[in-house]
Amino acid sequence: MHGYTADKDALLKRLRRAEGQVRGVARMVDEDAYCIDILTQVSAATKALETVALQLLEDHLAHCVAEAAERGGPVAQAKLSEASAAIARLVRS
Amino acid sequence: MHGYTADKDALLKRLRRAEGQVRGVARMVDEDAYCIDILTQVSAATKALETVALQLLEDHLAHCVAEAAERGGPVAQAKLSEASAAIARLVRS
Amino acid sequence: MHGYTADKDALLKRLRRAEGQVRGVARMVDEDAYCIDILTQVSAATKALETVALQLLEDHLAHCVAEAAERGGPVAQAKLSEASAAIARLVRS
Amino acid sequence: MHGYTADKDALLKRLRRAEGQVRGVARMVDEDAYCIDILTQVSAATKALETVALQLLEDHLAHCVAEAAERGGPVAQAKLSEASAAIARLVRS
Repeated sequence: MHGYTADKDALLKRLRRAEGQVRGVARMVDEDAYCIDILTQVSAATKALETVALQLLEDHLAHCVAEAAERGGPVAQAKLSEASAAIARLVRS
Repeated sequence: MHGYTADKDALLKRLRRAEGQVRGVARMVDEDAYCIDILTQVSAATKALETVALQLLEDHLAHCVAEAAERGGPVAQAKLSEASAAIARLVRS
Repeated sequence: MHGYTADKDALLKRLRRAEGQVRGVARMVDEDAYCIDILTQVSAATKALETVALQLLEDHLAHCVAEAAERGGPVAQAKLSEASAAIARLVRS
Repeated sequence: MHGYTADKDALLKRLRRAEGQVRGVARMVDEDAYCIDILTQVSAATKALETVALQLLEDHLAHCVAEAAERGGPVAQAKLSEASAAIARLVRS
């Protein structure tokens, strides 16, 4: 069981759409579409992935991190550091 | 012919890798992988798409926009506005 | 008492530096510096603010959110939703 | 003369506001404001700087880069590479 278990179907549906968008970008490049139109499609795929990441992170905080915080101690500390590092990677990417 | 024509093979290769990464994220969700590990993979896919976008933009500036600028006039102005809007979308996404 | 209390001096020092960087950008614009050099300075200021935001968020999770999670109930839920919304704003800005 | 000369007053006004926002963040930290409220203010300052950067870049493309493109040759090539590198820094920051 993970934080995202309840959202699994929605996440998978969103990821399949993102995968289709990336494939769409490749097709546009292959068929010599106009650069700016390709960039618009790249932005759509990037935003879809960002939404997936934020959902995963929210679920992770609300379950794994919250449960570790309830128990306290070094495990809680480690979970919080790990989550903060993941947030930093996300903000900087 | 587009700005990215000379980089087409490299772009398509990179996009196929990004598509594989997104599919990898879906597989990890499906197989109940640990949230933080999934997030790391999402970041990798996002970065790959970002690199594609920056390459497309660089090629677009160096060809379409540069050629329009050489000719000057309202077409040059329109191409520059369009490129700036695409850059803003990219920075804000 | 807030999550960031222990980091207050470091945060204030960093914010004073960021303020100086923004003032530096204004001075460069005022003195007609080269656009690209100004952009480099804007990026430095933006990165400094990002570091402040990530520190505040890490402290917030490790204290306010962790304490709320220990107590559990609707307050914990509200704190987690609030933190997730702040993370989303940060990732999208 | 630079690309941003015509926008200088608007840029300086926006930068003074951003500087005030950063100072506001420092005051909030100093007065122990609630973390999430500080983060909202940090986001506002970051967005203001982003808008400045996009304006500078648009002006730079429409003037310095467009003029270099009209003349062509290695100088045009260098200006385009420099602009692309600045865009990449902005997108990744």
